[in-house]
Amino acid sequence: MSSTGKFEAEIAPLLLNFNNETEIIPAIAQDFVSKEVLMLAWMNREALKLTAATGTATYWSRSRNAIWVKGATSGHTQEVQELKFDCDADAVLLLVKQIGVACHSGERSCFHNPIDLKEKS
Amino acid sequence: MSSTGKFEAEIAPLLLNFNNETEIIPAIAQDFVSKEVLMLAWMNREALKLTAATGTATYWSRSRNAIWVKGATSGHTQEVQELKFDCDADAVLLLVKQIGVACHSGERSCFHNPIDLKEKS
Repeated sequence: MSSTGKFEAEIAPLLLNFNNETEIIPAIAQDFVSKEVLMLAWMNREALKLTAATGTATYWSRSRNAIWVKGATSGHTQEVQELKFDCDADAVLLLVKQIGVACHSGERSCFHNPIDLKEKS
Repeated sequence: MSSTGKFEAEIAPLLLNFNNETEIIPAIAQDFVSKEVLMLAWMNREALKLTAATGTATYWSRSRNAIWVKGATSGHTQEVQELKFDCDADAVLLLVKQIGVACHSGERSCFHNPIDLKEKS
């Protein structure tokens, strides 16, 4: 812990419980202002280190098997305002300033498909 | 799609891309009122079906290898107000009315461990 009660950026990746086989954990990006949940992506230790070090959301692309600086191609980067991990140390939450939109479909959030709830319909 | 433009509760579990090996997907629970991200858990098809059918957040416990009605023991249930899936159909977002607290530690949210950001410190 640092003097501000936060986990040091260099140490946090070592503390987290990355999946034994895949060596990744889920990472939730949430809009810092509107609080909208924008997307769920994945991080390995390197992605988490880079995110903490640069302040720019950096994930692990499972499809490309590579480090992925969100927005590197599209310009739709995420400036990280807060970074947290959960009680089981196996998931990460990023509060971000989203430049442009989070979803490659053009929607602001990737979560734009509602499922009907039987009890509410 | 139903007449309200929502995916039918019965059909949605069949449309989603559950992991080929583990047959689960990550599920984010967010407070419907405060918009705070409360926790990340996991769902298999059965958990998603039950969540949509009952309106009570129901997950798959990876540690117990069993269906887990959140709050069944503690009373800290989550009443689902909205249920969505993402553009890749491999993650779910639940907007919930949280009874009590989400975290077994007693904190309202499981994401209560901040990581220092080098650029911000």
